[in-house]
Amino acid sequence: MEPERGSQTEIRVRYAECDPMGVVHHSNYPIWFEAARSTFCRERGIDYAQMERDGYAMPVVELHCRFIKPAYYEDLVVVRTWPKECRHSLLRMGYEVWRGEELLTEAETLQMLIERASGKPRRFSEELYERFMTPRKG
Amino acid sequence: MEPERGSQTEIRVRYAECDPMGVVHHSNYPIWFEAARSTFCRERGIDYAQMERDGYAMPVVELHCRFIKPAYYEDLVVVRTWPKECRHSLLRMGYEVWRGEELLTEAETLQMLIERASGKPRRFSEELYERFMTPRKG
Amino acid sequence: MEPERGSQTEIRVRYAECDPMGVVHHSNYPIWFEAARSTFCRERGIDYAQMERDGYAMPVVELHCRFIKPAYYEDLVVVRTWPKECRHSLLRMGYEVWRGEELLTEAETLQMLIERASGKPRRFSEELYERFMTPRKG
Amino acid sequence: MEPERGSQTEIRVRYAECDPMGVVHHSNYPIWFEAARSTFCRERGIDYAQMERDGYAMPVVELHCRFIKPAYYEDLVVVRTWPKECRHSLLRMGYEVWRGEELLTEAETLQMLIERASGKPRRFSEELYERFMTPRKG
Repeated sequence: MEPERGSQTEIRVRYAECDPMGVVHHSNYPIWFEAARSTFCRERGIDYAQMERDGYAMPVVELHCRFIKPAYYEDLVVVRTWPKECRHSLLRMGYEVWRGEELLTEAETLQMLIERASGKPRRFSEELYERFMTPRKG
Repeated sequence: MEPERGSQTEIRVRYAECDPMGVVHHSNYPIWFEAARSTFCRERGIDYAQMERDGYAMPVVELHCRFIKPAYYEDLVVVRTWPKECRHSLLRMGYEVWRGEELLTEAETLQMLIERASGKPRRFSEELYERFMTPRKG
Repeated sequence: MEPERGSQTEIRVRYAECDPMGVVHHSNYPIWFEAARSTFCRERGIDYAQMERDGYAMPVVELHCRFIKPAYYEDLVVVRTWPKECRHSLLRMGYEVWRGEELLTEAETLQMLIERASGKPRRFSEELYERFMTPRKG
Repeated sequence: MEPERGSQTEIRVRYAECDPMGVVHHSNYPIWFEAARSTFCRERGIDYAQMERDGYAMPVVELHCRFIKPAYYEDLVVVRTWPKECRHSLLRMGYEVWRGEELLTEAETLQMLIERASGKPRRFSEELYERFMTPRKG
């Protein structure tokens, strides 16, 4: 983790997110990672909804998760996310889910900046690159 | 139920749809009803995706469900839907979920035909009314 | 709304909760209502997870929703819930979803206290009744 | 793909599975993979619900997905799954999602056989190993 460049999002586990094993179903983690990216963008002044209205999108093209320990109903977990790499049209983000001092999940996504109409990849502008990759000042 | 005007959709219960009680979480039923409406529309030649591209939408404005018996992982259930009423901009649909001879759920939705740009209600055209309300010939 | 007896839960709308119309899909509201009930229980000292371990459950047996205005990605909404009635084995709860001063959704659920093993309804104990129905002191 | 050892599951894309970009949200794919595993188990005579009642579980401990092309509302896709490796307590499964001749997604999960009570890994029995790994006869 590179805390100086990352964001933290608190999530209270919902009952509907848990499965018959009594633990959070793994399909919910990508949704939490996305919530974490939303926090990250909000904190960096990146308006993703506006990017979509401007004709761009950033679909997830790769997802890698390692589930280490389960999360339970009513747990208060923290999802950390930080940028790992940004090149051409690709952005790689890292994630960790923590419950207190316990690391529950590690993950990574690869996202591609595309033009919505054509689906074609688009290079990150200098400005957008800076917003994603530059550590926030204190 | 008015079978001559309705549609049937088979659904195999997914593990992720079940909660720590070991039964289908009630939030999945509205999704199943929607899948049933998709079948209904497909069978009547109503192209909902095209309606959206044409600038219309039919959001659910009311939802009423009565959960009688639970459904379980791997159950093969049948969702029945049929039109109850269509007036001005409103369409009322009924639903039943069956597992063999057991009625599991009864429900009703009210949907409104709107113009997407303005969100304003729009009256059903005669043609669309006929497609929704007229029983299919054998 | 009877604020002196209710709870409030803040929810940030997730991207995955939104549909092709660009609004929160209606199937997410029952999940939000449940999150609101979790807050309510937590504030009243009702440990629902423990109730399940003790062999009880409180499935939703009826759900009624009126969707008035849509919610959008990134909206910060407040879900209010309060008890309306508690008799025999049944608990009726009310819900409202607000975005600032705008009422987006009104809803009601009916829940039944059951014994998990048999699925049979069980009468609320005096103590549980009190916890659900008695307004909290300031 | 090793078709002689795999299973195929047809899935009709649901409206609620699609996001504001108008495509299936990536969090739904793990749910489809699980539905495909359910088909695989059913075809091989592996009763996963019974395994859980017997005190075992097979949580996903790793998930790797590559999203190549989007799926859309109403698409009829085929999810293929097949076993890649089974050693000690670990089972590796492969997945592909196809729409006609188009490959939409490639994925892999790693699952661990555990004892539910302790969460400890358990070695696959010879019988279970055979059921997962042996190609079905014609």
